[in-house]
Amino acid sequence: MYNLLKGKKGIIFGALDSNSIAWKVAERAHEEGAVFVLTNAPIAMRMGEINELAKKTNSQVIPADATSMEDLENLVEKSLEILGGKIDFVLHSIGMSVNVRKGLHYTNSNYEFTAKGWDVSALSFHRVMHVLYNKKAMNEWGSIVALSYMAAQRVFPDYNDMADNKAFLESVARSFGYFFGRDFKVRVNTISQSPTPTTAGTGVKGFGGFLAYAEKMSPLGNATALECADYTITLFSDLTKKVTLQNLFHDGGFSNMGISDVIMENFNKE
Amino acid sequence: MYNLLKGKKGIIFGALDSNSIAWKVAERAHEEGAVFVLTNAPIAMRMGEINELAKKTNSQVIPADATSMEDLENLVEKSLEILGGKIDFVLHSIGMSVNVRKGLHYTNSNYEFTAKGWDVSALSFHRVMHVLYNKKAMNEWGSIVALSYMAAQRVFPDYNDMADNKAFLESVARSFGYFFGRDFKVRVNTISQSPTPTTAGTGVKGFGGFLAYAEKMSPLGNATALECADYTITLFSDLTKKVTLQNLFHDGGFSNMGISDVIMENFNKE
Amino acid sequence: MYNLLKGKKGIIFGALDSNSIAWKVAERAHEEGAVFVLTNAPIAMRMGEINELAKKTNSQVIPADATSMEDLENLVEKSLEILGGKIDFVLHSIGMSVNVRKGLHYTNSNYEFTAKGWDVSALSFHRVMHVLYNKKAMNEWGSIVALSYMAAQRVFPDYNDMADNKAFLESVARSFGYFFGRDFKVRVNTISQSPTPTTAGTGVKGFGGFLAYAEKMSPLGNATALECADYTITLFSDLTKKVTLQNLFHDGGFSNMGISDVIMENFNKE
Amino acid sequence: MYNLLKGKKGIIFGALDSNSIAWKVAERAHEEGAVFVLTNAPIAMRMGEINELAKKTNSQVIPADATSMEDLENLVEKSLEILGGKIDFVLHSIGMSVNVRKGLHYTNSNYEFTAKGWDVSALSFHRVMHVLYNKKAMNEWGSIVALSYMAAQRVFPDYNDMADNKAFLESVARSFGYFFGRDFKVRVNTISQSPTPTTAGTGVKGFGGFLAYAEKMSPLGNATALECADYTITLFSDLTKKVTLQNLFHDGGFSNMGISDVIMENFNKE
Repeated sequence: MYNLLKGKKGIIFGALDSNSIAWKVAERAHEEGAVFVLTNAPIAMRMGEINELAKKTNSQVIPADATSMEDLENLVEKSLEILGGKIDFVLHSIGMSVNVRKGLHYTNSNYEFTAKGWDVSALSFHRVMHVLYNKKAMNEWGSIVALSYMAAQRVFPDYNDMADNKAFLESVARSFGYFFGRDFKVRVNTISQSPTPTTAGTGVKGFGGFLAYAEKMSPLGNATALECADYTITLFSDLTKKVTLQNLFHDGGFSNMGISDVIMENFNKE
Repeated sequence: MYNLLKGKKGIIFGALDSNSIAWKVAERAHEEGAVFVLTNAPIAMRMGEINELAKKTNSQVIPADATSMEDLENLVEKSLEILGGKIDFVLHSIGMSVNVRKGLHYTNSNYEFTAKGWDVSALSFHRVMHVLYNKKAMNEWGSIVALSYMAAQRVFPDYNDMADNKAFLESVARSFGYFFGRDFKVRVNTISQSPTPTTAGTGVKGFGGFLAYAEKMSPLGNATALECADYTITLFSDLTKKVTLQNLFHDGGFSNMGISDVIMENFNKE
Repeated sequence: MYNLLKGKKGIIFGALDSNSIAWKVAERAHEEGAVFVLTNAPIAMRMGEINELAKKTNSQVIPADATSMEDLENLVEKSLEILGGKIDFVLHSIGMSVNVRKGLHYTNSNYEFTAKGWDVSALSFHRVMHVLYNKKAMNEWGSIVALSYMAAQRVFPDYNDMADNKAFLESVARSFGYFFGRDFKVRVNTISQSPTPTTAGTGVKGFGGFLAYAEKMSPLGNATALECADYTITLFSDLTKKVTLQNLFHDGGFSNMGISDVIMENFNKE
Repeated sequence: MYNLLKGKKGIIFGALDSNSIAWKVAERAHEEGAVFVLTNAPIAMRMGEINELAKKTNSQVIPADATSMEDLENLVEKSLEILGGKIDFVLHSIGMSVNVRKGLHYTNSNYEFTAKGWDVSALSFHRVMHVLYNKKAMNEWGSIVALSYMAAQRVFPDYNDMADNKAFLESVARSFGYFFGRDFKVRVNTISQSPTPTTAGTGVKGFGGFLAYAEKMSPLGNATALECADYTITLFSDLTKKVTLQNLFHDGGFSNMGISDVIMENFNKE
């Protein structure tokens, strides 16, 4: 709509279906004039919905397991070829907890599950940047964004080990962001998004109630997936060149609320 | 350049001369299609440079002392008239410490000076929002931004009582931002900007050295006034509707640095 | 009970009655072997309860309006005399909002009231340190503590302008704490305490409901005034010599909670 | 010296030699009247120095690899037996990066090394609490402390992947701390300590220079291992019962400094 990303080239991880934030980012990036490669884990692509998105946005899809250096190297090499030049933006929207899926309580984790979730959700961000950095694949003033959640800072009991994974992810953004900034003028940030009813999110126990709670706590209500995509576009644009190493809350104000009037009234009714 | 603010109406406080961040914001807002009123304290307008900016951006200038409710009420009423409708964005870029001007050390403040600086630099932001809120002068999904500095969180000895004023200012953004969000769907944020060689800034003792230090600490270097204007435009645009109550660091990464390699090398040479 | 403050000399501001945190600090400091001077605003001492505390703790009372440099200078000079040496610890527990007392909503502040509340609640902490610093009244490794509240970081709508005052207060702790550390090896911190049913606190609109909410949000429940006194003692002791410029949450964990199971269950019942 | 831990029972992880913070904590806990079990990884105990500490503090040593649930279960069971009752305090002072040891740059991590370091340094804290929680091994109002470092929040380039591990560790403190608080009234915190010349620390590249830098940045200078032990004692004592889920900076003020006068003068000399 604004040509904010005109001529920019990117890689977008994690568009599962039309509820995904990554899906919305792809649609919005396309509208703003970007070209990009879509990628997801082979296992997440079984439904084939990503091909619909690829068609809609004139993109190619390259499957990659974000825990495999080989896959990531292949992804980046192919992307450079397909896009005909270096990368301007990358979205990392990947997260999964095996402990959550298997219904294991946080106080009773299975550590193989924990390690797997950490590898997929957090370490993968390091891997992605590792490959981009070593292949010198990013253009100057490029922008790398990963999606996070406020459980990295505060306790949301049902978020389980994803809280710790998000804390690790945000730290990776700072740690790698320093070297990416110093050496390639590339910025790295995380967006800490409202709870969002994606296909992954809605599966979490008690998600519906929590969504309603967050809505009433936030002065502007929860941020939607589409609004998150809009915000992500600003971070990919040339208007935010000096924003780096930040964790940016995109949550209708939730993160800085102690209590809202509505939540207090609800509570008092009890 | 992108029509990001097409049709939007605003009020911009604090454009002193072409080094001012507010000046750059006015220029960029104009380029992005906004119309706005410029305002500054009568005393700050003596040089007449603001009229040059007004001409350049097709704006009118309404003088207002931001510590006077009468002036602010007049400003908002006239702005609504001139702009022909409610306000979409407001920039508060006002700050001044009498203790700094008079060379009084922080440990030896004159409290009349402190109170004056607090009124001008911090309470004025409450006053501005007070008038806008009570006159219902903001459009839904409008955006209010004030400029701040990281001395609100961390110690920069020469920043003197402006540190405490910025902490107050950022708190006002949250406190008033809650009511503005709840009642009018308006967002309120502060930008915590790199040290910037504005006419006001460069007067501060030891500013040049500190600028160089910040440049070397920040992986992307210091953010300029123009870059700050670009970033401000994104916060005024429709792409950041759910960002509120935040203090947003725009500083090339300085805020999340512990130490950079360059600063460490410099230190080791000693 | 432990002799943690054996031989230490102090000044304690703000003991109104036996519900006051400062009152509990005085009792606990006495038990731990400290000697100290009690002080409060002349107007707050009308009930005479502070004399009861003075008797109980073998202390003298020196009235002082914390917004008067003359009173504070008199207080510090007399304290040095009475205690027979320099000061080891100071507690600042002073806060009052005229806007709250008069029932003015935050969006409709009276700025004379705001200025008065700011002077009493926040600037007074600067004044106290100003006098102590310039009179070189503190012993090396002394400890200065002010009581704060999390409204300095997050929105609690009924806390009104006290939120902004606490943000200013915490900034003063950092700003002055730097100079006090550098020049006198004195530490300065704030304690961000749970909502506490003091005589002042319970007067605030909706306080009871909020107290119950905070109790259910905090994994350990709210911290009491006595527990706050215990914690304050540790900060006055020799065991925390290198803790400075910090805002320390003493709140049963509230500050790092996003949501607790109990609050979520309550909400879901609605 | 104060009997602050009289009658309390604990487990102390990570006393390698007399430079270790854990070693100092053990000595101080002993002086304060506590009884405890010492533990370390079998491989770290080869030098036998821990036996000297055991003798000095009347403690028993139980080797345990903190990445082995079997070892940790054995440790907790034996500790309950030896100490004749439930545990009041636990210190986790464990950290190691294989990438650092092998000299691999952060942008060139070996992910097997990363996973090993994460398991030892961060996940081990979850494992320890997992065993304590499921065996109901902690007394009410017990206290669990892990040592951390500010690289969890800010960039210190040489700290490598330990930064991300500390971020994970601090998140585990919050996540598990919630359940420990809710179910057993046990508090869980991390101490973010100054850089400390332990045997492990001094091996890190450029450590000496950084130590000097931190000393000059901190208004009170760096905190020593002994001072950290003193502070830890307060967190184990009954005086801090309502402090939980916190990351507590014990660093002479470093964490809230933007720049100190001394560092600025040094820089200007360049």
